[in-house]
Amino acid sequence: MRYGLDPKIGNAIIQAADEIINEKLNDQFPLVVFQTGSGTQSNMNCNEVISNRAIEILGGQRGSKTSVHPNDHVNMSQSSNDTFPTVMHIAAVLEISNKLLPSLTKLRDSLKSKSEEFSKIIKIGRTHLQDATPLTLGQEFSGYVQQLNFGIERVKETLPRLSNLAQGGTAVGTGLNTRKGFDVAIAEQVSKITGLCFKTAPNKFEALAAHDALVEASGALNTLACSLFKIAQDIRYLGSGPRCGYGELILPENEPGSSIMPGKVNPTQCEAMTMVCAQVFGNHNTITFCGASGQFELNVFKPVMAKNLLKSIRLISDCCNSFRVHCIDGIKANEKKISKLLHESLMLVTALNPKIGYDMASKVAKNAHKKGITLKESALELKALSEEEFDEWVRPEKMIGPKL
Amino acid sequence: MRYGLDPKIGNAIIQAADEIINEKLNDQFPLVVFQTGSGTQSNMNCNEVISNRAIEILGGQRGSKTSVHPNDHVNMSQSSNDTFPTVMHIAAVLEISNKLLPSLTKLRDSLKSKSEEFSKIIKIGRTHLQDATPLTLGQEFSGYVQQLNFGIERVKETLPRLSNLAQGGTAVGTGLNTRKGFDVAIAEQVSKITGLCFKTAPNKFEALAAHDALVEASGALNTLACSLFKIAQDIRYLGSGPRCGYGELILPENEPGSSIMPGKVNPTQCEAMTMVCAQVFGNHNTITFCGASGQFELNVFKPVMAKNLLKSIRLISDCCNSFRVHCIDGIKANEKKISKLLHESLMLVTALNPKIGYDMASKVAKNAHKKGITLKESALELKALSEEEFDEWVRPEKMIGPKL
Amino acid sequence: MRYGLDPKIGNAIIQAADEIINEKLNDQFPLVVFQTGSGTQSNMNCNEVISNRAIEILGGQRGSKTSVHPNDHVNMSQSSNDTFPTVMHIAAVLEISNKLLPSLTKLRDSLKSKSEEFSKIIKIGRTHLQDATPLTLGQEFSGYVQQLNFGIERVKETLPRLSNLAQGGTAVGTGLNTRKGFDVAIAEQVSKITGLCFKTAPNKFEALAAHDALVEASGALNTLACSLFKIAQDIRYLGSGPRCGYGELILPENEPGSSIMPGKVNPTQCEAMTMVCAQVFGNHNTITFCGASGQFELNVFKPVMAKNLLKSIRLISDCCNSFRVHCIDGIKANEKKISKLLHESLMLVTALNPKIGYDMASKVAKNAHKKGITLKESALELKALSEEEFDEWVRPEKMIGPKL
Amino acid sequence: MRYGLDPKIGNAIIQAADEIINEKLNDQFPLVVFQTGSGTQSNMNCNEVISNRAIEILGGQRGSKTSVHPNDHVNMSQSSNDTFPTVMHIAAVLEISNKLLPSLTKLRDSLKSKSEEFSKIIKIGRTHLQDATPLTLGQEFSGYVQQLNFGIERVKETLPRLSNLAQGGTAVGTGLNTRKGFDVAIAEQVSKITGLCFKTAPNKFEALAAHDALVEASGALNTLACSLFKIAQDIRYLGSGPRCGYGELILPENEPGSSIMPGKVNPTQCEAMTMVCAQVFGNHNTITFCGASGQFELNVFKPVMAKNLLKSIRLISDCCNSFRVHCIDGIKANEKKISKLLHESLMLVTALNPKIGYDMASKVAKNAHKKGITLKESALELKALSEEEFDEWVRPEKMIGPKL
Repeated sequence: MRYGLDPKIGNAIIQAADEIINEKLNDQFPLVVFQTGSGTQSNMNCNEVISNRAIEILGGQRGSKTSVHPNDHVNMSQSSNDTFPTVMHIAAVLEISNKLLPSLTKLRDSLKSKSEEFSKIIKIGRTHLQDATPLTLGQEFSGYVQQLNFGIERVKETLPRLSNLAQGGTAVGTGLNTRKGFDVAIAEQVSKITGLCFKTAPNKFEALAAHDALVEASGALNTLACSLFKIAQDIRYLGSGPRCGYGELILPENEPGSSIMPGKVNPTQCEAMTMVCAQVFGNHNTITFCGASGQFELNVFKPVMAKNLLKSIRLISDCCNSFRVHCIDGIKANEKKISKLLHESLMLVTALNPKIGYDMASKVAKNAHKKGITLKESALELKALSEEEFDEWVRPEKMIGPKL
Repeated sequence: MRYGLDPKIGNAIIQAADEIINEKLNDQFPLVVFQTGSGTQSNMNCNEVISNRAIEILGGQRGSKTSVHPNDHVNMSQSSNDTFPTVMHIAAVLEISNKLLPSLTKLRDSLKSKSEEFSKIIKIGRTHLQDATPLTLGQEFSGYVQQLNFGIERVKETLPRLSNLAQGGTAVGTGLNTRKGFDVAIAEQVSKITGLCFKTAPNKFEALAAHDALVEASGALNTLACSLFKIAQDIRYLGSGPRCGYGELILPENEPGSSIMPGKVNPTQCEAMTMVCAQVFGNHNTITFCGASGQFELNVFKPVMAKNLLKSIRLISDCCNSFRVHCIDGIKANEKKISKLLHESLMLVTALNPKIGYDMASKVAKNAHKKGITLKESALELKALSEEEFDEWVRPEKMIGPKL
Repeated sequence: MRYGLDPKIGNAIIQAADEIINEKLNDQFPLVVFQTGSGTQSNMNCNEVISNRAIEILGGQRGSKTSVHPNDHVNMSQSSNDTFPTVMHIAAVLEISNKLLPSLTKLRDSLKSKSEEFSKIIKIGRTHLQDATPLTLGQEFSGYVQQLNFGIERVKETLPRLSNLAQGGTAVGTGLNTRKGFDVAIAEQVSKITGLCFKTAPNKFEALAAHDALVEASGALNTLACSLFKIAQDIRYLGSGPRCGYGELILPENEPGSSIMPGKVNPTQCEAMTMVCAQVFGNHNTITFCGASGQFELNVFKPVMAKNLLKSIRLISDCCNSFRVHCIDGIKANEKKISKLLHESLMLVTALNPKIGYDMASKVAKNAHKKGITLKESALELKALSEEEFDEWVRPEKMIGPKL
Repeated sequence: MRYGLDPKIGNAIIQAADEIINEKLNDQFPLVVFQTGSGTQSNMNCNEVISNRAIEILGGQRGSKTSVHPNDHVNMSQSSNDTFPTVMHIAAVLEISNKLLPSLTKLRDSLKSKSEEFSKIIKIGRTHLQDATPLTLGQEFSGYVQQLNFGIERVKETLPRLSNLAQGGTAVGTGLNTRKGFDVAIAEQVSKITGLCFKTAPNKFEALAAHDALVEASGALNTLACSLFKIAQDIRYLGSGPRCGYGELILPENEPGSSIMPGKVNPTQCEAMTMVCAQVFGNHNTITFCGASGQFELNVFKPVMAKNLLKSIRLISDCCNSFRVHCIDGIKANEKKISKLLHESLMLVTALNPKIGYDMASKVAKNAHKKGITLKESALELKALSEEEFDEWVRPEKMIGPKL
């Protein structure tokens, strides 16, 4: 209306659009994702629903196209080619801001509080899955916290480019049939309505023909899925057992785990999370393929890109919440098992490197392993050092940080 | 019942199961894909619905677990660990046999009939997107037919391994709590009911812990998606225009293509197909990741693998049907444009290699290109051969096959 | 020469080609993979090396192109477009037949002999990483054997389509400038020389424009990589420790594992294998992308497809050999640890389902878990059954197969 | 030496290391990528070469381990577990900073100067491959420039996290056997030597166990490859012909394109670029798989991750240079063809939307298409407007931007 649309028509359009927003006309949107690659069919669907409803509002006949025309009045200075990518970006930014980042932050906080809770529990480290030097369980969890800290950063850094809106480019990016300033004004309006920062895309040709910003955002989710997979995988292994696994963590028992094995409890939350991550990896693959496949003035893989990106965002968001509430928050350390494993380990020998050298330390460890004796027994047997020296030097609590 | 279940209970279970099959109890299955990785929750959901309904049938109280116990009577000699993969395989084989192969065959037939229809139309070939020697439009389409012939073979060859059923392996593959012969009997029964050939898996440990058969099937779909992408991509480029593209094919006009550009018609069916292919590539990626991630006696990525495989099968099936009906069947050759391009091409010069040698032929082509003249004009200008020789030797209709 | 090439020239060409085969002219092949997408540059490189060397043989001047012309005489009735895919298929079939299948077969045999060696060792099963019902270590390994049996089948089934040769299609598939029967004759000759079965491609248009056969072959490797990843992953976890892991397997100690931790031994072979698998997954992704991206009469992603496929074949072949010799063949069962874990497990309770029902069995297991007592103690405490019954029913050796 | 190593030994180590840097000892590094997943073998290879050479320098016997011990003196306060990821990060940052960013910037500049050169050439736009409204060729290229501008941003934004160094974490991240401040000092020293900004990793547990920073960097390359694929793909299609394609661009003729078709010139540079992109997509897939697969205190997929990331960086860098010099810089517009296509197009009708409405404009276009007449002829025939109006309103030069 600011640029000349008859306010009577304009207001009817606004009223119709509000009804759509309030989900009153959902049944008039029957289209599937696998349609035309520009999303034109969905855009025209929307234009037609608005037009018909606006006609009704103005007392006319649905389908008449007379008082409010779906192209001339509703689509007006738009093209599917700029509207659809605009909507894709707005949806992605909203979902990331309102769903993903809050759920990641809460999960990070939950892991952080576990890291603090476990800060005094010294456990054996594992590298190559083999016993290694000790660390605290809190330190182990601090790695997960750091992964999510970085993950949150990575997701946030995609927002500036995702917040660029194509609107105003119309059919091929030139802005034909629109007006100077319309693009900037639209972005301002969207920012105002959403409370988030949107800008008009600096180059509309790029904004229609390429969807690199979606590929980039999916890449951040892909990295995040690597982090979450690692965390969930670690936790289910550390909680494996109850008697024949690592057994260092006690995971919450949410439901019976087996239809045949009585009393079995499984790391269901970890499994859901790792399945979600696998889905995100595949979605990223689809998005990448599509991102490379734009042609000339238009990328015609828009609906499938939007679908996969939004699915990834929502799956991660929902699963992080569930994983946090039903798994992380309830994790307990099995201190008895942790302590038992720690003291049986041979890799405490590493503390002796600066004292007796790598080669002698190696002999001590191998001798202990071969004979099934303790490190101390082995060290004394090989006369590598005295009992007092051993007790002085091989102390897990001194092995969890560098020396001053 | 054959192995000892009380027939009264057994028949109530059968009746309840039939009601589920007839979709009368759909509202009692609320679970999502991202649950436990064995599908135990869905399996127990089913066991419980059956148990409760069977109890009702026998006049008891829902939830009482008394007359028909979800584990003891319904799950009985099963485990989610063998039931769920069994169902995954049955579903995949059914969908491939009843949906995918018929739709592929029909599409292949449609392309074949186009190949025959176009068998006399000689057109310019394109390699590296550059003008090359001629072929018939029928020959071009025959390549697509061959791709689908091979694709159908590839899909079929996955069936023997997909048709192996895990049932009878119970919890870890040993068959604990079941009876010798139960596994074979189940497969026979499934074959009888479905009319398709199922067998008991030769090794139940593999059948629970690995889902390589699903990865393999997805691999066949992945190859198929490459074929379909190539075909749809070629067709939309060959149909590009109407005035500023290749314009050799006239694609059916199914709907208005643009919300802003009047009269525009787009290759919507090709776009839907290429988007479907991109989705299939991503689904394959997810399935591959999951396929590698089984642990010990169980792969716990079952629900997400099943979902992605079935989605790929259904998307390709549906899209092949739509692509055939709304695109391939209606394609027309733009013979005028094809002929015009053919006769302007410089690559007819290739026919002269055996006559005047590659180097002179090269000069003729480059001279024509540089001066914007015809091949014949160039050849005569360079005195490479006589006019009669040119007319005798450079004849597209002689260039579409080897010499005798 | 059979079709008319001057034997003097023909024999010089043969002699030159033999020198190339005997690697005497390697330094004249400087090209990299990332060149033109048809491999024309490599093909012409070869034609030119042959031409120059043949000219020399005939007493002429290198570079003169006079007596033996690289295009007219050496390339003659060929095109890069049929020669290069022909060579891709021959190379793939040779590598699969001569390297991959033998190395897979040996690895399968090695796993089979371990499966037999371990056939009496009863161990705890693990599903969801949680303790489950028992099986023998031999049964566990039999799953791996089955995975490779299927894997070998899968790879072999790609050979019929990989064995189709494009030669004779020349520039666009029509066979222009070649002779009828040339294509069949070439395939016969290749079969004779290699001792393997090659056929001329049934449709040359498909053979130039699509490389679905390479995508398919890569798909078989992709599935194989899933199998190998699972096997290597299981083995490193089962060998994790030596004191703080699962510790059921003792892996060969091939080299010191750590630069800082004395005496540490790592599952290096498993790590190499899982890294190879990850590379194969990525290569498959590249091949898939390329396979979808052919255009009109030519797929111009040939060199990168060939490189990735051959790399995958060689990596798997070499790694299977190394994994077999340096890992599998030397694996020992840690029977003491296996037995200890087995008898501590709570999941032996599953044997009681048919006796005392799932719900009571569940109580027994949970009570034992909670109080840290044995199953038997728990069962007696809960009066679920008598001591004699327990000893009669809960016997691992009776739990590793179905009942008669 | 700052922390207590005997300077005699320390200086011999420095001298030996310098010889390695100067590539004098290359033949002593025989290892391949597919080794242990921590890179320990490569690290110890290096330690041993240094130790042996340092021993020689000090007048001792190679292999004696006496005066300079590979573990005690060379590896000393390091572990492969912190050294190898440190080196991975340094290598990636150096290659990105010194190779990738300069080559991207130059390519961007080259595209920018083409965009300016082509700023007055009005051409037909293409959406869905179908004729659309016009734009300038310069505008089309400006989209490519924008893609690279964003691409450069994306790559740069990965540097802060890639610049975090793991050194000082030693075996499991605790820093055992090192000294407080060592980690910070190392990062300072690396910054000083390289002239780039490196920092010690804020959390060493994350830095050893996860390689999310590599996945992230690969994600940026993956997005970049989407951009480059799109650009190269567009350019080869726009240059397709010379007579039977789009033919709007004239690409530099770098080499003969065909072994059989004389005078053929192919878009070789575009093909190399699209093959490189396909390789990068696959490498990203491998890196992602590996990134998800870390376990406990260590990710044991380090060598294959480093290899794939560095390969991607180098391939893109080299190919951008080649693409720029041998393709972009030499591109010429085929103004005659561009103008011819523009004026034949029917989509100029879009300019009439605000004048005669979408429905009438649509009739005009369809009538012209059906009858093979011009837009103007059609418009007049349908009495949609006067000749003067048509000439006034349908002017391509007024259609390349929004109205004031």
